[in-house]
Amino acid sequence: MISKEMVRLGTARSVIREIFEFGKGRAAVVGEENVLDFSLGNPSVPAPEKVQETIKNMIDTLPPKAYHSYTSSVGDNNTRTAIAENLNRRFGTKYTMNNVFMTCGAAASLNITFRALIASPEDEIMVCVPYFPEYKVFIEGQGGKVVLVPPTKELHIDVAELEKKVTKNTKAIVINSPNNPSGVIYPESNLKEVCSVLKKKSEEYGSPIYIITDEPYRELVYTDVKPAHIPLLYDNTIINYSWSKSLSLPGERIGYILVPSSVVNYDEVYAAVGGAARTLGYVCAPSMFQRVVEKCIDVEMDMSVYKKNREILYENLTKLGYNLAKPDGAFYMFIETPEKDGEAFCERAKKYDLLLVPGIGFGTKEYVRLAYCVDTQKIEKSIEVFKKLIEEK
Amino acid sequence: MISKEMVRLGTARSVIREIFEFGKGRAAVVGEENVLDFSLGNPSVPAPEKVQETIKNMIDTLPPKAYHSYTSSVGDNNTRTAIAENLNRRFGTKYTMNNVFMTCGAAASLNITFRALIASPEDEIMVCVPYFPEYKVFIEGQGGKVVLVPPTKELHIDVAELEKKVTKNTKAIVINSPNNPSGVIYPESNLKEVCSVLKKKSEEYGSPIYIITDEPYRELVYTDVKPAHIPLLYDNTIINYSWSKSLSLPGERIGYILVPSSVVNYDEVYAAVGGAARTLGYVCAPSMFQRVVEKCIDVEMDMSVYKKNREILYENLTKLGYNLAKPDGAFYMFIETPEKDGEAFCERAKKYDLLLVPGIGFGTKEYVRLAYCVDTQKIEKSIEVFKKLIEEK
Repeated sequence: MISKEMVRLGTARSVIREIFEFGKGRAAVVGEENVLDFSLGNPSVPAPEKVQETIKNMIDTLPPKAYHSYTSSVGDNNTRTAIAENLNRRFGTKYTMNNVFMTCGAAASLNITFRALIASPEDEIMVCVPYFPEYKVFIEGQGGKVVLVPPTKELHIDVAELEKKVTKNTKAIVINSPNNPSGVIYPESNLKEVCSVLKKKSEEYGSPIYIITDEPYRELVYTDVKPAHIPLLYDNTIINYSWSKSLSLPGERIGYILVPSSVVNYDEVYAAVGGAARTLGYVCAPSMFQRVVEKCIDVEMDMSVYKKNREILYENLTKLGYNLAKPDGAFYMFIETPEKDGEAFCERAKKYDLLLVPGIGFGTKEYVRLAYCVDTQKIEKSIEVFKKLIEEK
Repeated sequence: MISKEMVRLGTARSVIREIFEFGKGRAAVVGEENVLDFSLGNPSVPAPEKVQETIKNMIDTLPPKAYHSYTSSVGDNNTRTAIAENLNRRFGTKYTMNNVFMTCGAAASLNITFRALIASPEDEIMVCVPYFPEYKVFIEGQGGKVVLVPPTKELHIDVAELEKKVTKNTKAIVINSPNNPSGVIYPESNLKEVCSVLKKKSEEYGSPIYIITDEPYRELVYTDVKPAHIPLLYDNTIINYSWSKSLSLPGERIGYILVPSSVVNYDEVYAAVGGAARTLGYVCAPSMFQRVVEKCIDVEMDMSVYKKNREILYENLTKLGYNLAKPDGAFYMFIETPEKDGEAFCERAKKYDLLLVPGIGFGTKEYVRLAYCVDTQKIEKSIEVFKKLIEEK
């Protein structure tokens, strides 16, 4: 009688959540310190002090109505301007507040963007494997079809495969770099090839194919190779951002959509973003945290823990003979399993209280995902287990 | 090429927003104090001090990860328990945290509830005139049809009309009491008649018709007649709540959905709520404010300003000969215009810098809405203008 699809989505526990619950159960038996739970992407580094200072300062110096009231649906003007100026300084762009639409985090941003663009049930959104599993829920929930693009051996985008998958119904492609689950930053050369195919196909079909970026990990980079700012490569790019990871504020639901003026029919697209936010019930982004991110726009988080964890893991796992793509950003590693079966490997790992996520949900069953946003001590402990797991095989 | 409907919804400026912008323009010319802008329902009473105290205390005593991290999608257990216990104390109910699902405010709650219940494009949701205009956007956005139920002369629900409008496709009715725009609290006798029709029709069609309450004004009541707690009258009731008005936190987007255990197939309905929240991109309700509302659950706001404004207006307007339903709650009055044409009356009022919202958007063109969540001085100033406006006619 009610929506069967919503019951299904609400009942089917996410695999990641199930592993997390298993971990809590084990912790009660063997002690929290002995469970190597690498399943969740919950930042272990706390929000920078400046965040708390900003909140206290706001409370001490402003009347509550100045920061608890509705903002306009597009967001506070000072916040939007601060975001535009921060990006302009870093990427040499010319954004203004009129390119920025504040949202309740990246999941909200993506849903709003999908809803704004999808005009027919035939519309297809391409997603690059491996991918964040909720993309599928969001795209289908907003009325579109998911088309998967397989990766190269390095987990980059396979451009030849991409070209084959484009049809007259292709509305957009989602690009997530640094990538969840692989940690890979797509090389600029790879993205340029992608853009070139999309331009050609847009002309061929007489209709723009958008790039939708999902950039919550943009600032979580451990090498000198920074992720490309895609609007500099491709006009019809829409950016989706969140401070969940870059300021460790995942629970506060604060992010934005950026529609560059270079987007074809920019006015209509920006309006459609507003219409979609309205339709989905996103009245405005949380108002106090709009002010917080404005004041903290230039804060750089201390990511030395993530960096250290990554180095220990990458060095040891490759030495042990594991095959994995070089993770340049985010806080994930995507590891090819000796048995080419992520689920079987996870079951074996569980016996040592090492908790990983099978790759199948991300579109590649041979792999497992490891989230290294945890204490370094646990990373060190895990090496011994990884040794056993490859030797057993 | 993109969604025309989203462009339309994003471009069509809300009438209320347009009036608000007009007021800002006039304020620049004649001075803010001379513009009697009664267009917006933005609380004029600031959030209670306990809110700011709670935030500062949280920052001073807890590590940031304790309140900035993701909560589970249903919300923090302590917050959900506090809500259940608060309602149990007031209404003699037996809710537990398992009945409560935290959301990003009432607009989110309503969208999630509509999405959870609507299973087919034929599904109809009834809305009682006069009604908050965004209901239409939300219901149609979530795939359902809106069916309007006209009011009685007192702006109660016309039960005979309601009965005529119920069909085999009726999925639910939205009840908003105290009502926006009328301020009316539906008498319990009126609601009991509604429930009786719905029970009869549910049996006749062999399928539950839900009551969906929208209760952001539940605590804004100025008389001894409190709004009924509808789950006590009708099993298949789903409550949608927000602290936007009751704690003056409209920008913080914090509210909940309550699915009582009495709802038929409670497990499935609660799961569908979770599935709908997931599909719409609502990962979790803002985490810091989940803690804030937990600690402030028993705080009663000082509403003496709203009460005073209401008394001055009601007494003077009725004395002047205006016809209006007795507003027992919220901070709105819905005034029948002498010319039976709200738009014409608003135009006449504008000449005196008195800004009201025409009733047509709420489903009744003869009326205007007045939001009295403003300084009392402006209320007093407006009486002279209302006198001129009725005399001119």
